[in-house]
Amino acid sequence: MRRIALLLEYDGTAFSGSQLQRERRTVQGDVEAAWSRFTGETSRARFAGRTDAGVHAVGQVATIDTERDYDARICRAAMNHFLMADLAVRAVTEVATSFDARRHASSRVYQYEIEDGRTRSPLSRSRAWQRACELDVAEMSEAARALPHDERDWAAFSGPVPEGYPTVRLLQRCDVRRSAPRRMTVTMEASGFLPHQVRRTVGALAEVGEGRLTAEAFVELINGAPASAGPTAPPQGLTLMQVHYPLGVIDWTAGCAGDGTEEF
Amino acid sequence: MRRIALLLEYDGTAFSGSQLQRERRTVQGDVEAAWSRFTGETSRARFAGRTDAGVHAVGQVATIDTERDYDARICRAAMNHFLMADLAVRAVTEVATSFDARRHASSRVYQYEIEDGRTRSPLSRSRAWQRACELDVAEMSEAARALPHDERDWAAFSGPVPEGYPTVRLLQRCDVRRSAPRRMTVTMEASGFLPHQVRRTVGALAEVGEGRLTAEAFVELINGAPASAGPTAPPQGLTLMQVHYPLGVIDWTAGCAGDGTEEF
Repeated sequence: MRRIALLLEYDGTAFSGSQLQRERRTVQGDVEAAWSRFTGETSRARFAGRTDAGVHAVGQVATIDTERDYDARICRAAMNHFLMADLAVRAVTEVATSFDARRHASSRVYQYEIEDGRTRSPLSRSRAWQRACELDVAEMSEAARALPHDERDWAAFSGPVPEGYPTVRLLQRCDVRRSAPRRMTVTMEASGFLPHQVRRTVGALAEVGEGRLTAEAFVELINGAPASAGPTAPPQGLTLMQVHYPLGVIDWTAGCAGDGTEEF
Repeated sequence: MRRIALLLEYDGTAFSGSQLQRERRTVQGDVEAAWSRFTGETSRARFAGRTDAGVHAVGQVATIDTERDYDARICRAAMNHFLMADLAVRAVTEVATSFDARRHASSRVYQYEIEDGRTRSPLSRSRAWQRACELDVAEMSEAARALPHDERDWAAFSGPVPEGYPTVRLLQRCDVRRSAPRRMTVTMEASGFLPHQVRRTVGALAEVGEGRLTAEAFVELINGAPASAGPTAPPQGLTLMQVHYPLGVIDWTAGCAGDGTEEF
């Protein structure tokens, strides 16, 4: 048995999220179906992280087990042949059979795009949160910088989770910058994220940007009750950019990576 | 009678082009229908330039005549209410009743996006021409710079046109630059463009980038037979960015422009 890692890009618009669901189109379902058409094998794909309906990825990682011995380049080409236009395999490489895409990840990087101070934009409607008012990026940036970077309980920024779900995470990065005159990007990196954590953080940051919440009050939200952080930003602004692993665990250049794995 | 100018943005993917066609969804058809629902008037919209099926715009200009006297801000809000998500009015202003959006335009600016040297990208599949091979941007840039900037007959870069159609145009700008590691942007500005002219120019430039045509041979194409320039780049990479008018002819800031009219 060999374990194959796939680096996936997808437009989340038409998917009911990454995780397999009966009677719904999901990224996992499409990957497993393409794998089956390619190899004849029925295999379970395992994902580094779960993305919600409408959330995109350029660096999702999945593994799939196989008894076959295909070349990585052929594997990528075949998968891209069977996958639809909104899902693609960017790179393929073999990993140790003990490799666990979710548990071995050291961090995840997400980006959230906001367009502010303009009319709705047809060209970015499925890629950004469009806000009519202009947001104060300096205030948002100050608030983001004030978030703690030690291990903390982030339950206040989480959507509903099962009882006993561990809510302590290490936030490594949260920054807000204007990437263009009416566009801003929030970048977050953490050991792991709770459900809706990025979207709730962005929702609260937008309140700061509107002047409805001070930077200090924003940071204090972390000490509040679960889900106290307020509005959840909509899914279409969110993209899973990259999943990091400890050095040597996974090497995309060893298999076939038509395009590098750029840092975000 | 008043003449109203609309600044339009659209995602061209689901439109059969800008120009009205029976039984097909077009930008003009949608604008006229929204205007009718808003005002009750049946009016003809006139466009600055024609865009093909799949071609996008962020700065298309249209005019429509009305007997009503709505405020520009209300007019924009109402139109955006009636238009679907892939078409929006960015700004509205009143113009002289003698204003002709097409004939009075001094130039048009188009951008063409190419992604090269990577696997197909789900997230930009409707916005860029995706090429597996890497293109030589230096060669393409040199070829683009060598195009003449005086009035010329561009028939060799044109798609089919009716007999007697004037094919002399003034090219003011054609440049190629890498906007990101695996992405390049071709920007062209001219007094006017022939049908398919930008897409044929980009198609020929890509031949240069692949090393199948020298920069010198590219420039010599202009002296060839009509449509001698070779392949036509696909529509989804093309966006009409801006239509320029002589100073004082149209003032978007006088009406309502939620977002400026940035220069490209």
